[in-house]
Amino acid sequence: MPASAGGTASARAHGDTPAREELRAMLEEVEGCLRAFLARERFRWSRPDGRGAEPALAVSELVDAGGKRLRPRFLLSGYLAAGGEAGDVPVRAATALELLHVAALVHDDVMDDADRRRGRPTVHARHAGIHRDMGWFGEPRRYGEAMAILAGNLAWAYADHLMAGTSRAVAGEWFDLKAELIAGQAMDVTGAAELTPDPELARHIALLKSGRYTVHRPLALGALLAGRADLAAAFQPYGEALGEAFQLRDDLIDAFGDGVVSGKPVRQDFGRGKMTLLLALAMRSDGRIRGLVERGEAELLHERLSGTAVHARVEARIDRLVERACDSLDGADLTPEWRRELIATASSAAYRER
Amino acid sequence: MPASAGGTASARAHGDTPAREELRAMLEEVEGCLRAFLARERFRWSRPDGRGAEPALAVSELVDAGGKRLRPRFLLSGYLAAGGEAGDVPVRAATALELLHVAALVHDDVMDDADRRRGRPTVHARHAGIHRDMGWFGEPRRYGEAMAILAGNLAWAYADHLMAGTSRAVAGEWFDLKAELIAGQAMDVTGAAELTPDPELARHIALLKSGRYTVHRPLALGALLAGRADLAAAFQPYGEALGEAFQLRDDLIDAFGDGVVSGKPVRQDFGRGKMTLLLALAMRSDGRIRGLVERGEAELLHERLSGTAVHARVEARIDRLVERACDSLDGADLTPEWRRELIATASSAAYRER
Repeated sequence: MPASAGGTASARAHGDTPAREELRAMLEEVEGCLRAFLARERFRWSRPDGRGAEPALAVSELVDAGGKRLRPRFLLSGYLAAGGEAGDVPVRAATALELLHVAALVHDDVMDDADRRRGRPTVHARHAGIHRDMGWFGEPRRYGEAMAILAGNLAWAYADHLMAGTSRAVAGEWFDLKAELIAGQAMDVTGAAELTPDPELARHIALLKSGRYTVHRPLALGALLAGRADLAAAFQPYGEALGEAFQLRDDLIDAFGDGVVSGKPVRQDFGRGKMTLLLALAMRSDGRIRGLVERGEAELLHERLSGTAVHARVEARIDRLVERACDSLDGADLTPEWRRELIATASSAAYRER
Repeated sequence: MPASAGGTASARAHGDTPAREELRAMLEEVEGCLRAFLARERFRWSRPDGRGAEPALAVSELVDAGGKRLRPRFLLSGYLAAGGEAGDVPVRAATALELLHVAALVHDDVMDDADRRRGRPTVHARHAGIHRDMGWFGEPRRYGEAMAILAGNLAWAYADHLMAGTSRAVAGEWFDLKAELIAGQAMDVTGAAELTPDPELARHIALLKSGRYTVHRPLALGALLAGRADLAAAFQPYGEALGEAFQLRDDLIDAFGDGVVSGKPVRQDFGRGKMTLLLALAMRSDGRIRGLVERGEAELLHERLSGTAVHARVEARIDRLVERACDSLDGADLTPEWRRELIATASSAAYRER
């Protein structure tokens, strides 16, 4: 059994609520669905020529390597909060969301030239290494990127296949989620290249990539699968506010966090000129920061940022966003238990350490 | 009105059969569907920040630049040959196929580092140029590739959205088409890197990328949309044989064709070490060819190939494949008119000059 499955979904905690127990059981089913689907796919492409199986193997390895399964968690929370009953349809949809996320990660890692993901070499880095070691024809970098593009496309195709056959409303929400993910990433990549110190752009990117893609659309998909289109009115502001808080926490962990605690490399965004909301605010309030970003001086940038009021301003903004997320659930037709769960989720996502 | 629409679908020929007239009318509808869908999408992403619209603009431009619309043509042929009646569903599905193809082209051009496509700069080349001209932060090449990955993903998402809501059988065929496209491309990229002189691998790649993806699956999708699953038994061998013939003609045009007649750059495959079936056969029969491929000596390779019997052997194989494609229609329940059309299509695809 892959390490991830245990780490991801089956860690037991005493005193769990029935709502959390139900969510955990469905997340276990998502792990089973991922494993079974990917095992069939690896087998399918292993013959007659194993070269065709490489994209499926790359997808499997990244799924096995773990991850927070955040989007499946939000989808299933939305489904259960909407009164949905356990069944195959939400499990398949949650599995689809995780596979779409794998696609996005593999492609984003090419765009960012990231070396490692979930504790392992990224798909493009691994395949560039194979090309180099084998002394193959052509350029190792281009080969690695080709294999990553294909692995991402396959994970994307898996996601769509698992989402096929749902209602028109679900299909529309699913399309919007994907289109927003792409538009958000295009803004992010172009904003990073332009080095535009624009907090509005950074906020809009966070809205699309974190608010909509990570929280609002998964919750709304879950609610729609349970036949509860009415919950969109609450899940949209909840998701948008929580998504921004989640992204700001990401930025803070990268900027000021301890790599040992967070388990991932820190000080990455600065070196890449990534226009986080944190950085946009800092560039506005301190003229020298722009030069440090342009020269890729990550350590000096970190020192300079520690001396500004940015950290405290961002923490205060996170507080307001969590409050706004919780307030937006007020008018929604939810059981008291699930209202409490969604409030607890907002806090744990916004105030996490890694 | 974009030049493509006229060039692609509305060229009139005297003496067309009713079957061809009907096909042409539906292909016109596909052009209208492409234009309307993409216009809505460009508008949707133009606010509040135009950076998010770049992927949609890139997809639009490539669609407007023309193309043979081969896969929509096969899908609609399969639909009409199966007795389907004009309607929105086949037009949307044919539009989806063309958008998926645009996605594949944009991504393939990154993998091949191609500069031009449909007479214009490729998406990654154009965006790398913008980055360079603007003096932006980071590497122009990586930026160009990021924008191409995103444009391809968006075209892919469009395709899936247009295909949503179809039957379980259609969804299964659609998934197989996409998975085979990816597996075939993975084999192609790896085979080219390894320089393996393996005609079986080259034939399998042609089976997946041309036979299945270009001919068989589009025809089968059309037949399934008309409720005629029975036609798969004829369309599969027809598509596989015709697809291989089509690919061999591509190889011959690249190797021996006249760039002025074909309207595209020739002698491209050799320089890239691309393992075409043509090259695999030649490497087997002439030991010196491998060295020329490894050193990227495209002109010497061309001279050497002209001296072997490869050209004639490939022409003979195309003849046999066309015959096999036509024979496979024998037992199928088709009108005499559509049987004739499909036979004519096989000849024109296999014996084209560009």
